[in-house]
Amino acid sequence: MTDKSKFLFNFSKIKSGKHKSFAIWLTGLSGSGKSAIAYNLKKMLQGRGFPACIIDGDRLRETLSSDLGFSIKDRKENIRRAAAVAKMLIDNGIIAIVSLISPFKNDRNAAKRFISAGLFIEVFVNCPLSECEKRDTRGLYKKARAGKIKNFTGISSPYQKPDNPQITVNTDKESVNSSCEKIIHCLLKSKPI
Amino acid sequence: MTDKSKFLFNFSKIKSGKHKSFAIWLTGLSGSGKSAIAYNLKKMLQGRGFPACIIDGDRLRETLSSDLGFSIKDRKENIRRAAAVAKMLIDNGIIAIVSLISPFKNDRNAAKRFISAGLFIEVFVNCPLSECEKRDTRGLYKKARAGKIKNFTGISSPYQKPDNPQITVNTDKESVNSSCEKIIHCLLKSKPI
Repeated sequence: MTDKSKFLFNFSKIKSGKHKSFAIWLTGLSGSGKSAIAYNLKKMLQGRGFPACIIDGDRLRETLSSDLGFSIKDRKENIRRAAAVAKMLIDNGIIAIVSLISPFKNDRNAAKRFISAGLFIEVFVNCPLSECEKRDTRGLYKKARAGKIKNFTGISSPYQKPDNPQITVNTDKESVNSSCEKIIHCLLKSKPI
Repeated sequence: MTDKSKFLFNFSKIKSGKHKSFAIWLTGLSGSGKSAIAYNLKKMLQGRGFPACIIDGDRLRETLSSDLGFSIKDRKENIRRAAAVAKMLIDNGIIAIVSLISPFKNDRNAAKRFISAGLFIEVFVNCPLSECEKRDTRGLYKKARAGKIKNFTGISSPYQKPDNPQITVNTDKESVNSSCEKIIHCLLKSKPI
C-alpha cells in the first residue's frame, strides 16, 4: 500500500465545510473491480454523511460521452469530460468517485492538473490481466481476443500502470470490502471512520 | 405561477431514499438571475439536508463544454452534456440545479426526455430583455449590441419562452429569496420546508 501523508484528508474539515471535497480516481483494467469498489465506497461515505457521486466509465459511454469512440483522441476527451464533471462535484462539496479505465498516464496526469493535484487521489485497482480475463463478466475480453472489439485495453491497446498512486488495492487478493476499507483507512490516516 | 401537482415531489421520500432525486432546470435570458437563484436554492436545499449540485452554464463553458461555441449545433451539444450530468447526479441521489440559458424549446425538451419528464422541473426565470440589458452586470449585452459577440440570446439569437413551465419566477418584480421560496413552495405543494 502506497500511503502518502501529503494526500491524506481531514474528513471533519470536509464535513464542517472548512475543507474542499476531492476526487477518488480509480484506474485499472476492465474487470479489475473498479465499479464494485466505487459503489461500495460511495455507500460507505454516504453512510458517514459525506455526499458522494460516482462518475462511472461505462455509464459515461452511454450518456455524456456517447458521441465518443475508443481512439486515443476520444479516450483523452472522455477523460477530460470526466475530470470536468469531477471538478464540478468538488466545487459543490461532493466527493467525486471516478471509476474509469483511464489507461494512459498523460490523460490521468491532465485530469490531476485540471482537478488540482492536492484534491486528486489516484487509486490503482491492480489485478493481473489473466485474472480480469478469467472473470470476463461481460464477455468483453472474449470479443476483444476475437478481434470484435478494437482498441481494447490490455489486449489491443496498452494500459500504463500508475508510477506513484496514492493507494493501490490488489483485487485478486483482497475483497471489495477490504479494498474499500483500505481506501477509507488511507484517507483517514490510521483511524477508520 | 404555473404549479402542477403532477410535478410535485415528496421530499421526505427523497430524504429516506425511497424517492429518486430530480432536476430543477432554470431557463432564461442572460442576466435574468438564474445563477443567483441556483446558488441560493442550493444553500436552502443543503441546509435542509438534501444533497444538491449546480450545473452552471457559465462554468460549463469554461470546463466541460470549453470545446464548444454558440452555434445552434454547439448549444444543442452543450445542453445534451448538461442533461447527461444532471441524470448522473439524479442517479446518485443528488438534486441537480441546472442554470442554463437553454434558449430553444427543442433542446430543453430533449433534456426533459433524457432525464425523464417526471424528474424534470422546468423553471422559467422570467425577466424582460430591457431589464436584463439594463442590469448587464458583465457588459455582455453592450458587446452583443456592438456586434462583438455573435449569436447572443435576445439580441442576435432568439430565446423561446417555455410554453408550460412548472414554475415561473419574475425576477424583475421579486427578489432572489422570494423566487427561491416560490420554487421550494411549489416543490412542497403548499408546505414550506
